[in-house]
Amino acid sequence: MAGDGSDQRALQYEQTLMYGRYTQELGVYAKEEAARLRESGQRRSRALDLLEYDKGRCAKCRICTVRCQKFLISRVGEDWIFLILLGLVMALVSWVVDFCIAICLQAQKWMYGGLDSNVFLQYLAWVTYPVVLITFSAGFTQILAPQAVGSGIPEMKTILRGVVLKEYLTFKTFVAKVIGLTCALGSGMPLGKEGPFVHIASLCAALLSKFMSLFGGIYENESRNIEMLAAACAVGVGCCFAAPIGGVLFSIEVTSTFFAVRNYWRGFFAATFSAFIFRVLAVWNRDEETITALFKTRFRLDFPFDLQELPAFAVIGIASGFGGALFVYLNRLIVQFIRKQKTINKFLMKKRLLYPALVTLLISTLTFPPGFGQFMAGKLTQGESLVTLLDNRTWAKQGIAEEFDYIGNAQAWKHPQVNVFVTLVLFIIMKFWMSALATTIPVPCGAFMPVFVIGAAFGRLVGECMAAWFPDGIHSDESIYPIVPGGYAVVGAAALSGAVTHTVSTAVIVFELTGQISHILPVMIAVILANAVAQSLQPSLYDSIIRIKKLPYLPELGWGHHEKYNIRVEDIMVRDVRYITLNCCYRDLHSVLMLGHLKTLALVESAESMILLGSIERAQLQSLLSQQLSRSRRMEYIRERAAAEKKCPSDVSNSDSEDGRQRASQEVRFQISTEESTFSPTRPASQKPLKPALKRPSVMERPTKLPTSPQDHSGIALKSLFCSSPDVEALEKNNNMETPVSPEQRKPSKRVRISVVDDGDVEDDMTLREIAEWEERQLDEQVDFNNCKIDPAPFQLVERTSLHKTHTIFSLLGLDHAYVTSIGRLIGVVSLKELRKAIEGSVTVKGVKVRPPLASFRDSGTSSSETEATELHKLWDRHRNVSLPGEQPTSESDEKSQ
Amino acid sequence: MAGDGSDQRALQYEQTLMYGRYTQELGVYAKEEAARLRESGQRRSRALDLLEYDKGRCAKCRICTVRCQKFLISRVGEDWIFLILLGLVMALVSWVVDFCIAICLQAQKWMYGGLDSNVFLQYLAWVTYPVVLITFSAGFTQILAPQAVGSGIPEMKTILRGVVLKEYLTFKTFVAKVIGLTCALGSGMPLGKEGPFVHIASLCAALLSKFMSLFGGIYENESRNIEMLAAACAVGVGCCFAAPIGGVLFSIEVTSTFFAVRNYWRGFFAATFSAFIFRVLAVWNRDEETITALFKTRFRLDFPFDLQELPAFAVIGIASGFGGALFVYLNRLIVQFIRKQKTINKFLMKKRLLYPALVTLLISTLTFPPGFGQFMAGKLTQGESLVTLLDNRTWAKQGIAEEFDYIGNAQAWKHPQVNVFVTLVLFIIMKFWMSALATTIPVPCGAFMPVFVIGAAFGRLVGECMAAWFPDGIHSDESIYPIVPGGYAVVGAAALSGAVTHTVSTAVIVFELTGQISHILPVMIAVILANAVAQSLQPSLYDSIIRIKKLPYLPELGWGHHEKYNIRVEDIMVRDVRYITLNCCYRDLHSVLMLGHLKTLALVESAESMILLGSIERAQLQSLLSQQLSRSRRMEYIRERAAAEKKCPSDVSNSDSEDGRQRASQEVRFQISTEESTFSPTRPASQKPLKPALKRPSVMERPTKLPTSPQDHSGIALKSLFCSSPDVEALEKNNNMETPVSPEQRKPSKRVRISVVDDGDVEDDMTLREIAEWEERQLDEQVDFNNCKIDPAPFQLVERTSLHKTHTIFSLLGLDHAYVTSIGRLIGVVSLKELRKAIEGSVTVKGVKVRPPLASFRDSGTSSSETEATELHKLWDRHRNVSLPGEQPTSESDEKSQ
Repeated sequence: MAGDGSDQRALQYEQTLMYGRYTQELGVYAKEEAARLRESGQRRSRALDLLEYDKGRCAKCRICTVRCQKFLISRVGEDWIFLILLGLVMALVSWVVDFCIAICLQAQKWMYGGLDSNVFLQYLAWVTYPVVLITFSAGFTQILAPQAVGSGIPEMKTILRGVVLKEYLTFKTFVAKVIGLTCALGSGMPLGKEGPFVHIASLCAALLSKFMSLFGGIYENESRNIEMLAAACAVGVGCCFAAPIGGVLFSIEVTSTFFAVRNYWRGFFAATFSAFIFRVLAVWNRDEETITALFKTRFRLDFPFDLQELPAFAVIGIASGFGGALFVYLNRLIVQFIRKQKTINKFLMKKRLLYPALVTLLISTLTFPPGFGQFMAGKLTQGESLVTLLDNRTWAKQGIAEEFDYIGNAQAWKHPQVNVFVTLVLFIIMKFWMSALATTIPVPCGAFMPVFVIGAAFGRLVGECMAAWFPDGIHSDESIYPIVPGGYAVVGAAALSGAVTHTVSTAVIVFELTGQISHILPVMIAVILANAVAQSLQPSLYDSIIRIKKLPYLPELGWGHHEKYNIRVEDIMVRDVRYITLNCCYRDLHSVLMLGHLKTLALVESAESMILLGSIERAQLQSLLSQQLSRSRRMEYIRERAAAEKKCPSDVSNSDSEDGRQRASQEVRFQISTEESTFSPTRPASQKPLKPALKRPSVMERPTKLPTSPQDHSGIALKSLFCSSPDVEALEKNNNMETPVSPEQRKPSKRVRISVVDDGDVEDDMTLREIAEWEERQLDEQVDFNNCKIDPAPFQLVERTSLHKTHTIFSLLGLDHAYVTSIGRLIGVVSLKELRKAIEGSVTVKGVKVRPPLASFRDSGTSSSETEATELHKLWDRHRNVSLPGEQPTSESDEKSQ
Repeated sequence: MAGDGSDQRALQYEQTLMYGRYTQELGVYAKEEAARLRESGQRRSRALDLLEYDKGRCAKCRICTVRCQKFLISRVGEDWIFLILLGLVMALVSWVVDFCIAICLQAQKWMYGGLDSNVFLQYLAWVTYPVVLITFSAGFTQILAPQAVGSGIPEMKTILRGVVLKEYLTFKTFVAKVIGLTCALGSGMPLGKEGPFVHIASLCAALLSKFMSLFGGIYENESRNIEMLAAACAVGVGCCFAAPIGGVLFSIEVTSTFFAVRNYWRGFFAATFSAFIFRVLAVWNRDEETITALFKTRFRLDFPFDLQELPAFAVIGIASGFGGALFVYLNRLIVQFIRKQKTINKFLMKKRLLYPALVTLLISTLTFPPGFGQFMAGKLTQGESLVTLLDNRTWAKQGIAEEFDYIGNAQAWKHPQVNVFVTLVLFIIMKFWMSALATTIPVPCGAFMPVFVIGAAFGRLVGECMAAWFPDGIHSDESIYPIVPGGYAVVGAAALSGAVTHTVSTAVIVFELTGQISHILPVMIAVILANAVAQSLQPSLYDSIIRIKKLPYLPELGWGHHEKYNIRVEDIMVRDVRYITLNCCYRDLHSVLMLGHLKTLALVESAESMILLGSIERAQLQSLLSQQLSRSRRMEYIRERAAAEKKCPSDVSNSDSEDGRQRASQEVRFQISTEESTFSPTRPASQKPLKPALKRPSVMERPTKLPTSPQDHSGIALKSLFCSSPDVEALEKNNNMETPVSPEQRKPSKRVRISVVDDGDVEDDMTLREIAEWEERQLDEQVDFNNCKIDPAPFQLVERTSLHKTHTIFSLLGLDHAYVTSIGRLIGVVSLKELRKAIEGSVTVKGVKVRPPLASFRDSGTSSSETEATELHKLWDRHRNVSLPGEQPTSESDEKSQ
């Protein structure tokens, strides 16, 4: 449904598929889990037995330890332990990463400083170092886990919406992300660590969850996992900036649409603990004397700013809004440009590491301190420039650079010939496009910190201008309060980062980063203005990436678009719903499956009543069909026939049975049938899932329990169906229902045929024609839904539900689609796609495009109640007439429902 | 359903009634609105006509102005204007209230100071002043709007959950709350303004919404109103403390269960604007030089605290947790004590103002500065004590009070004989019970600020102890950093207020209040620990009040109760569902309505299929029934009979028609039937709704459109039904469907009988027996659901939905109940009550009580899929057999569904 891009095929919408599904599945899930636990328990006890057998006493000790551990963990309350462990681990990771980055940057400086005799060598060192690091990072990530590329916040937003992204939370990705990020940031490129840390924290949480589940408990619960992931996102931001409150708020704003307040404490608890440990490590390492902010400022407390300076802050906010939108646009433009230019694209696809190297070369060349870098403080690292920008001294008292008391790193901003204003302007412009470009490199990297620094520089620029214009401050009273450009830098940083990410909580992050909250009102005003401007121009950076990556998403409702209250579900729903009836035969199933690629199909009572009973997943139906036409059933049929023939051998003797004597071997039959199918090239893909079954002996012991795998049926009628179906993954999942397999294990295998082993005493002696006929007969049988997972309560809307409400419900419950019913009758379906279209249509064309022709007729008279009445009448009449047709063409009922 | 207390009867659960209801009702609502708008448009245009007629040119100008205004408002984007107006108004209100309170407090001080010659006169002045103010406040609120009493946060929480509390957001309440609050706080009692300000802001928003709706637009939309109320709550806290961020977060934590992130900006925008104006007013009034924090602190920035002080902060947190729980407990205990003691209660009910006066007398006597007040800084107001407590000087260097450099207000803490520690301890203990007692006074008041001050005092106490123990600070390095007790006060204030309210965002409020964020980690640690302790002991103060006031609520799931993941809906659902079938007759309707008092009834296809088609409100069914037995239908019958008699006068002539000649007049019939009914005393109540109909001529013009009112039917069979039904309100609402009436208009009227006017040419000449027989015949007819509002998509769960998920869904969607279905079949219903029972059972008894016997059988085998299968079979069989019974006893199907 939401899958209209080829990239999306790989995604499994396990969660979003249905609202009701997981409620139903819980039971199945519980059973599976029970089976799995039992099994693993057996395995473990077997392992323990082995241990005991092998090592005697030592094993007993171990068992005892394990039991004690189990007891402890089950007692203390796992949430606490989990959150503390998560915080601890993430603080350590953050600190170690920071430490490594600092060493990397120091090494570069040392090299650069050591080679000051020769400018060319200096340049070479300055350029080669980041190129090597970035290339390594890109290559390493590419090889180990391509999922680790980029920020991670867009993906986490998608995951928290309920979509399962494959391979996204594995240990490999964790390693790739941490090492890749360290190298990328160590290169000194304008990249950030915030986004990746959100991802790393989520990885950590997922891995920790897996680890803790070894000791039993509730770690398998899916809704709990989502809660924990939400907390992990908060930890990620929190330990990155030592900003627990801002971290929680930022992660909420960035990843959630609706937030459960009861999960608040998790985020705060873990983020606080993490930030605490992170800063304690700094104290322990003697970097700091005590726990303080990361980028501590020392603005005066008594008179932080004058009321008359507020217009300047407002200007910063509005300009940042435009700047933020421009940044998002630029970033998307670069990505799309590279994608569209096919020649470039082809070349880059071949030499994947060339693009990162080239970009790094360009950027590092431009920042080379003796070169152009001297005009833009090129020798400062990101952190250093931020510290200098937030300094509370004024650089340019009267606009003359000479008066400015340069100390330490601040000297980098001084240039003998060039004004400090020019330096700042150049810094802003160069860093702006550099950051937009650098964040497109396929390494783990975020854009928050670069944007933050650019914003600080912009604020500083405005502040310095103000300080130059009003050298004695604006305040008219007796005491002179000079203007503090550092305060403007704080405001600018918060505003620009807020504009790019569409969040308000950057304000809080800025307070926690600087350790001062005195500028709260200017910051808040600027951030809100920046958000207002940016949100009306562009999506947030993360939403932009989500769209670029074609992840499933639901756009936000814009600000004050009241036409949303007027659009109804009936205007956007798809009226031609694919459904199956309770008394349908397998042939109907087959044709419905052939027609569309919907992930789920509605189950109605009958084609004329159209009463919605539930919904069934496509995969379920496919397995039903394949079971019906399975080889084992056919074998059974042959066996029965043989038995019947034995009883009266001369009785049944037609041409079919004669053909049957030809004894086509199974291999041959396979070949023939494959040749008949026009979709044969995709066959190998559907042979994947059997490998795990071969690997695990426990599964082989109960072959009867397993639902028949697609290899098993190989019916002629099914061929085209399975081969044309894009979601082989879903099928696999279904077939492996009783043997949960980790994704790593699912690799193509050549040993598939081994599984189609002997299954009885009789031989498959049917000819193709016989098989075809047998299958035709099978298709005419009525479907037996007994072994089928039916979602008995799919989410239902009514025609009059407003778009606004629908959006709320979809984002609240993470729905993928919902059925539209009218007094029990299925009349339509709304999926994420329709909703997205409706919202985006109205957002771009301001309510013109989205209002469909039907909407205009709505207010004329009491049409809806009439239709309801007629529908009721239909139901009623049916009751009176007691007429139940056996087989009614589906097209007719489609017309009816329209 | 949720109405099990008599207090609750008055509440109309318009929102919570049904999930699906409002979706359905949207259509009806839109129609109503359209009618209303048309009508008001007519009225307005008529008014304009009149104006034009009367005044000529001036009126034209006016029309022009109105149109310009309309255009402007429709263009600029109403949300912005609304939020800015709200912020502005609230800032003004907050400032004016603060100003008046300051004047009141000054007046008290002036009186007290002026009378220093005579201690008795001083005492009289000190005591009389608050007693008079509090008594006035209590009396004024009682007379004008009793809804204004108390904090307002519990009620707002209930309203934001979707419950409509009557008269809660009216102008009267606004006036009562503002004036009552000003007087109450002006008395100097330990009361706060935070809670009431949340209520005032919501009132403001509601009134502003009404005002703005005069100009058209989307102000009538219900979901928009909820969004605006959420923003208003943020504004309330924000403008009270000049804390925009903390305000937003606090209001979210306190009022919401799930928060829409897209509403974030509204709160931030309005709260920032409000806080800004609030502080600008202070600057404008020359109270401040520029915009700064309310209770500015000046702690050193370089070394705010030592790492080794953290255990002390943790101790503050844990102790505050216990303290907070104790406060909530004490508060509830006082209320319950007064309620239980019947003699006290009776006495107090008579003399309502005595209780406030007595409490005030007690508290003000104890704080009398020359009396006991000297040991507890009694002469300081709340704000003054907070300022002194947050001071960054140390009061007791070596534990000796003499060394402490007392300046200004801080002198109040010095006592010549008594140690400062003793003063602090006395202050804490006395203020603790005083605050708990004072917040039970029936005046508009909050408990946040008193608790905040107590927390600050407790923190200060710990800090002073630490300073006494470590006079040179703990830090072992060369530089000496003495301990800052003011920092401890900040931590204590945040921790205790966090514990009482169960929020983490008090930390943010504290930063914004003090203007310093340097103590972020200690504050966060203390707040989290305090929350952990308090939440495991007691509900939050607001939840406690919700329970005391018996408002509908859904308890939160506790921390880490994983048994919630194991309880299923099937364990808690009610299996004996009241339902009506599509083909039922009016008699069934009657009996179902007689049986229970459920607000809504399920509509199933038939008693044997039990396929859920939708749900119908009780009121709808009642009106159906009353319509069927209405006088007008009877008149029609009489008319038809008369016509038939005219045609063949000798044909039909039985004893009934003879009795019919007796010609009982209508009045007589009314009397008799009333005497027959045993529930007659409640009759007058159901006569309310007709007054508006009489008032408005436009309604009278179309009497045929109106559904028949309860007066109109007055059938014998209905008598008992309507009189025994407690929700006359709902019925009224239903009957006034097309004429929305503001609650003020709904007052008992004596002119009711006029409405039962002549409705034809024939006279009601039926005898009682005839009527009874006629009604019997009517009851046997099948129900015609055509004119009935059916909710076609009531919320459905399945048996296996976990309690955790159910809780989430209920609180997400604000449900009141949900049906449990199994493949379309209705098998049970879960209401808020069951859910509450299940959660509270498990919370108190730790999972023992709640797990019902059925739950233990769940894991044994695949029982559920079997039942599903059998149910499917049933459906299927039904399809095959094509057997549709006309009338099956309902009891049988009940058994089946169990």
